[in-house]
Amino acid sequence: MKTKWIEQARELDQNDPIAFTRQWFVHSSENLIYLDGNSLGRLPKVTADRLQQEIQETWGTRLIRSWNEGWYTQSATTGGKIAELIGAKSDEVVVTDSTSQNLFKLAWAAVSARPGRKVIVSDTLNFPSDLYILQGIMYQLGPDYSLRLIPSKDGMTVSDEDIKTALSDDVALVVLSHVTFKSAFMYDMKNVTKQVHDSGALILWDLSHAAGAVLIDLNGSDADLAVGCTYKYLNGGPGSPAFLYVRKELQDHLTPPVWGWFGDARPFDFNLVYKPATGIRKFTVGTPPVLSLAAVDASVDLLVTTGMEKLRKKSLLQSEFLIEMWKEVLLPLGFTLGSPENPDQRGSHISFRHPEAYAICQALIAGVDGGPVIIPDFREPDHIRIGITPLYTTFEDLAVAVLKMSEIVNRQLFLSFRQRSGDVT
Amino acid sequence: MKTKWIEQARELDQNDPIAFTRQWFVHSSENLIYLDGNSLGRLPKVTADRLQQEIQETWGTRLIRSWNEGWYTQSATTGGKIAELIGAKSDEVVVTDSTSQNLFKLAWAAVSARPGRKVIVSDTLNFPSDLYILQGIMYQLGPDYSLRLIPSKDGMTVSDEDIKTALSDDVALVVLSHVTFKSAFMYDMKNVTKQVHDSGALILWDLSHAAGAVLIDLNGSDADLAVGCTYKYLNGGPGSPAFLYVRKELQDHLTPPVWGWFGDARPFDFNLVYKPATGIRKFTVGTPPVLSLAAVDASVDLLVTTGMEKLRKKSLLQSEFLIEMWKEVLLPLGFTLGSPENPDQRGSHISFRHPEAYAICQALIAGVDGGPVIIPDFREPDHIRIGITPLYTTFEDLAVAVLKMSEIVNRQLFLSFRQRSGDVT
Repeated sequence: MKTKWIEQARELDQNDPIAFTRQWFVHSSENLIYLDGNSLGRLPKVTADRLQQEIQETWGTRLIRSWNEGWYTQSATTGGKIAELIGAKSDEVVVTDSTSQNLFKLAWAAVSARPGRKVIVSDTLNFPSDLYILQGIMYQLGPDYSLRLIPSKDGMTVSDEDIKTALSDDVALVVLSHVTFKSAFMYDMKNVTKQVHDSGALILWDLSHAAGAVLIDLNGSDADLAVGCTYKYLNGGPGSPAFLYVRKELQDHLTPPVWGWFGDARPFDFNLVYKPATGIRKFTVGTPPVLSLAAVDASVDLLVTTGMEKLRKKSLLQSEFLIEMWKEVLLPLGFTLGSPENPDQRGSHISFRHPEAYAICQALIAGVDGGPVIIPDFREPDHIRIGITPLYTTFEDLAVAVLKMSEIVNRQLFLSFRQRSGDVT
Repeated sequence: MKTKWIEQARELDQNDPIAFTRQWFVHSSENLIYLDGNSLGRLPKVTADRLQQEIQETWGTRLIRSWNEGWYTQSATTGGKIAELIGAKSDEVVVTDSTSQNLFKLAWAAVSARPGRKVIVSDTLNFPSDLYILQGIMYQLGPDYSLRLIPSKDGMTVSDEDIKTALSDDVALVVLSHVTFKSAFMYDMKNVTKQVHDSGALILWDLSHAAGAVLIDLNGSDADLAVGCTYKYLNGGPGSPAFLYVRKELQDHLTPPVWGWFGDARPFDFNLVYKPATGIRKFTVGTPPVLSLAAVDASVDLLVTTGMEKLRKKSLLQSEFLIEMWKEVLLPLGFTLGSPENPDQRGSHISFRHPEAYAICQALIAGVDGGPVIIPDFREPDHIRIGITPLYTTFEDLAVAVLKMSEIVNRQLFLSFRQRSGDVT
């Protein structure tokens, strides 16, 4: 059985029209199967080169002059490239701050733009930092304001009906992750946006697990606001700055709560009174981290060049292959599917659930019998997330990982890994 | 006359006990005198090496595992090093977000902690982004709240008397730059903090132009809050993340407005309800930019190793030398001193004012007769700022710069540089 899957995987790899993109990334000498690109993307070679240049030449040699030679507009330039990946116009996206900070700015501005409406809606599948940001806003705005969380009946998905129930005429804003972080459940952006607009509320999409992973059409969906992270499928590097999107027509009508000099109309006039810039720059705040921005800029090019259609197509093929293997190899061993089976409702990672998930993950990372180190990630309480990043994930990576998971359970190799180590990833 | 100053400068350089630290920095083949380290510090060699390692090994090879191998605590680790430079305890400082974002968080928290008091006090010398942040907070809190700006009578300094006039029992918070960005005027931190505390308000010091430049004793001054930037005298790189300080006893009593997962007690439990971390970590928000953090970490070591006393001593000697030259060489040519003459009231840059300041700066940057490129910076309307960064500035740098300034004015070489180019630095 083992041979069958490996052979099938190799054949799929041979027929993969974008197999060559794997060579765009740095692969160390370690025997490693990396299935956590949905948490931290791999290092592109072009990024390493660009950073080297940025450090030695742009900072080291040109010094302060570099602000006039590209740094000052880098947030917008890179934002324009990300716009191509998410169906937005180039002057609707900017790279700045962290995802949480961006969510704070946009959610606050949105609620302020809907006076009289005092509820924010989100769901229990959302990434906790998003919920924390919203809870912080509610706390500051006072007890009249509240956060309403749509529960997930199956712990994995949210239905149109669930959303409908949560919407009422006191809702100012709906904040949802387009692809949720545990189950990879993907909302129908266009339909949900319409539902929300029909209720008179604004919508903010968190694209952290979606950008670079699935097809996104913010403009086509008439989406109002979005935020997203660049260190997952966009391979921008650890903690790289995030992006935010504000629909063109909304930009002049929203007032962010944090007013910094990079959001001022003329920052280098050093006026004592803030006058907001027009357009998307108003939503930036302090001096941007240009080294990190350069890394994002270089890596985003790789996705733009490849094209999201090809990436999504491969992601779906790989996901289907993985689910097929799960049915035959993992299901009999007690693994359940923690992600929707319908590919239209799923992003680019798959969650398998198992009572021994934590220990199985640790065993995979330790490697079995001198075999490869396999890195998925674990999410409480029992999720093993397998990240599919078509730019560098092979079908064989997936086949080997599943076979090792079955071996770990069959041979009870997880037993010695039950002790929690206080890991933070 | 020219020879006299150069000879004197060379002698001072020969007797400089920390002259060797200049070799810690990258110097390109360009004939360059860099006097803008107060805006963007030079690239330390150790930083270039550390970044190379961080990119190739920590990100490229170790990938997600690096979060458990140092990244997760990097904000606090580097904060602990900066604490040594500013007279704080290691668990009172953290590196995170931008200076403006940090000011927003701390100022908001401080005002919320003083209910009934609805005024924030600052001064007209403060960096505009600080004023913008405060204006944004006032706007959100409503028309009962206001920002009171202490005017500077001479456009250069603020007196104890001026501060006294601004303080009243409705003041919640005073926000001041310890060293102001144009004139380099330095407040007496201990006295002003006492004045502010006597009025019942909290104080927040912006240390952007002070950290790594002057002696700071936050604890000894009983200071409540501080923020500061790391890309000036700390040489952390363009747009590197900023730091914030909260006095230990205050940490549990303040509630920042932005609640992100890195400020949660147990971020990797992914609880749906925010529970703030104890201590300084509560004031962090999103995933930290660890590449940029590593750069700050490496460069801060250079200041800790050298010691702030030695750096301040050299900075004062260089400032006095520069002022001596100004009196003899520049004053007769129409340059006035835009900084306090009293060294106890001055940071580590000197502002010279001249009606043709902009054009003179441009001529210096273009270089005269094939001589060195000289980079000071220009600040509206007529300031030429000369940044003194003792880790790499030589006395000869200063002598040559002043002599070139006099040559540019004497030979009217500035005439062709009057056209504004829309520079952003």
